[in-house]
Amino acid sequence: MSKILNSKGPKGFLFSTAEAAIKKPGRKDVALIISEVEADIAGAFTTNTVKAAPVKLCMKKIKSGKGRVIVVNSGNANACTGMQGTKNANDIISHISKQLGIKSSLIYPSSTGVIGTQLPMERIIPALPALAHNASGSSFEDVARAIMTTDTFPKMITKKIKIGNTMGTISGICKGAGMIAPNMATMLCFILTDIAVKQKTLNKTLKSSVNKSFNRITIDGDMSTNDTVLMMANGMLGNEPLTEKSEAFQSFQKALDELTYGLATLVVKDGEGATKLIEVHVKGTRNEADAAKAALSIANSSLVKTAIYGNDANWGRIMAALGYSGIAFREEKTDIYFNNIKVVKGGLANNKDREATETLKTKIIKITVDLHSGSSSSKVLTCDLTEEYIRINAEYRT
Amino acid sequence: MSKILNSKGPKGFLFSTAEAAIKKPGRKDVALIISEVEADIAGAFTTNTVKAAPVKLCMKKIKSGKGRVIVVNSGNANACTGMQGTKNANDIISHISKQLGIKSSLIYPSSTGVIGTQLPMERIIPALPALAHNASGSSFEDVARAIMTTDTFPKMITKKIKIGNTMGTISGICKGAGMIAPNMATMLCFILTDIAVKQKTLNKTLKSSVNKSFNRITIDGDMSTNDTVLMMANGMLGNEPLTEKSEAFQSFQKALDELTYGLATLVVKDGEGATKLIEVHVKGTRNEADAAKAALSIANSSLVKTAIYGNDANWGRIMAALGYSGIAFREEKTDIYFNNIKVVKGGLANNKDREATETLKTKIIKITVDLHSGSSSSKVLTCDLTEEYIRINAEYRT
Repeated sequence: MSKILNSKGPKGFLFSTAEAAIKKPGRKDVALIISEVEADIAGAFTTNTVKAAPVKLCMKKIKSGKGRVIVVNSGNANACTGMQGTKNANDIISHISKQLGIKSSLIYPSSTGVIGTQLPMERIIPALPALAHNASGSSFEDVARAIMTTDTFPKMITKKIKIGNTMGTISGICKGAGMIAPNMATMLCFILTDIAVKQKTLNKTLKSSVNKSFNRITIDGDMSTNDTVLMMANGMLGNEPLTEKSEAFQSFQKALDELTYGLATLVVKDGEGATKLIEVHVKGTRNEADAAKAALSIANSSLVKTAIYGNDANWGRIMAALGYSGIAFREEKTDIYFNNIKVVKGGLANNKDREATETLKTKIIKITVDLHSGSSSSKVLTCDLTEEYIRINAEYRT
Repeated sequence: MSKILNSKGPKGFLFSTAEAAIKKPGRKDVALIISEVEADIAGAFTTNTVKAAPVKLCMKKIKSGKGRVIVVNSGNANACTGMQGTKNANDIISHISKQLGIKSSLIYPSSTGVIGTQLPMERIIPALPALAHNASGSSFEDVARAIMTTDTFPKMITKKIKIGNTMGTISGICKGAGMIAPNMATMLCFILTDIAVKQKTLNKTLKSSVNKSFNRITIDGDMSTNDTVLMMANGMLGNEPLTEKSEAFQSFQKALDELTYGLATLVVKDGEGATKLIEVHVKGTRNEADAAKAALSIANSSLVKTAIYGNDANWGRIMAALGYSGIAFREEKTDIYFNNIKVVKGGLANNKDREATETLKTKIIKITVDLHSGSSSSKVLTCDLTEEYIRINAEYRT
């Protein structure tokens, strides 16, 4: 798949995948990511009040700042599964711990799939020994494949950064597709680097990147119970651990920003049923919060998304979404563009319907809204809303 | 159409409809509602910051509390049309005023349709003399037909109330179909009564009814620029004007509540592409605001709405929508029902998938969520989300 940048990953990580037939047989659906040495770890998790069992466990474990293993499954979210769900996640961790001889506290669980059904432990547990003993038998991209649900392609990006005289590597994979909304997508994302980074710095850098990427995408406005971003830095590059004062820090943050924004873009491109990528850019606001609020309001509008799908330059729906976004703005100062076609000038039709209809036939649509009331701005990524989205989600479990 | 209760309307109102070919020829698209005498009038309008020209004019006019005429068109919303849009609406009012010999201040304009295009005055103005001179040539139901956009049937309800020894009448019509979200639908609603009501009481009663009906329905979460409810009470029944202390006041409020809830239900039944009516009832909350917030979150979830469309008892999506609604609740105390089938008990699957799938095949689905944390509750009406919604909205202007 051309979307995958398949280059050599960071040093000191091993991968393994196996089939446990969690939802149905015929594909790898459990995976392990193992760092050869104890790593610093940081994470970001769903803000949904209803959190899956593995999310709750990760949020506790990550307080130590240390980790070595991520064990992940698709096909079942282990959400709304009560005490049994927590016990099942812990049982998986115990088995992996024994097989690998690695402390349970360093093992992080993660799940994605249907909500409300207990994990099929009778099929998962027997699959674990082979999974554990096959470490390095798979690639990071194989893991990206194993965590897919309604995704149509695996998502992986690798970045190289110069640290002193050596080259460090950051690789990330993720899955998305449905139930994508700020904060964060229904989404699992695992990022690995061999660059040594102080845990505190890792935390802050990751949070900053996530805010500018995964928290700025929306597919259907639904926020999942399972969203998880985990990042391990194992220091195998041998550099002096990065802090915010390090010379290489800026390029590290930049690379991580690009990596997460790139993955977020892939998630939206692969939005359920999507035929077009839509970037909503609101500028000229008094502050960034207003711009983000307005951009999200437009990006979440079913009417805007269906209009884009239908190549209909119906900018009135954008004005309406701005109007109910809750921000203060002046209608008569508003300019709106589809790509570079200015369809609204000072709040009024600019009589560019024909040109606008033409430009909407492209696969990447940039909606720019200039409110001319300040110098702040914000971008949100989304996709169009199609009959295929309905079909996928009306039939997801069957 | 069986949905229309076609009984004799309130005394002293005349109706007229005509064709101005506003969007395209072949249907009546302008209408007049005239009270034979000056009436008390009350209204409720969109809270969208972007308001159509007629909405802005109505909001000014209604401060007088008096009205006699409503002039309405479909096919063009006269929204995002700037000063020209306001001038056009005022020009229509002037023409009607001259034709009818009624003061401009008593004439209320209203529009629905596409946003961002100026009204085709060259076709509207010539249609006005015939419209004005044909008063009483049409019925209230004809007006209901003339204001339809993507509605598939006209919507009208009539209620009779005993006032002393006489029978008063309230009739209401409305149009809805798309861009329906609190507060209020993309919706025009006109309510007429021959019962005399003090203007202050009329205002308060209408507001209370609207809050329990039109502000509790959602189709696509989009809020329109044109939402308008206008109610005229012309006092032709000859009763002592109602106040909150009047004996008949309670039955008047009850009738108006039923009328607006009935019209709101018809709007949702006729939601764009809808195949099912969904009533979301959240109870057991500490206060009504929490219940409404949770119910709206579920009712606006694309994933919940597509699951209902697909007869998929995927209650995990309801839990997720509860979780991101922003209210505090205990997952382990949550019960969820589809109609009378309890699918979730104490936050966990109740193993009723087969029965639930069966009950979802009905056309009216009641989702009940009991949070067991208090005695408050709230209901929200919505509909399922289907491929047909996408088709209608991807092609609306073409």
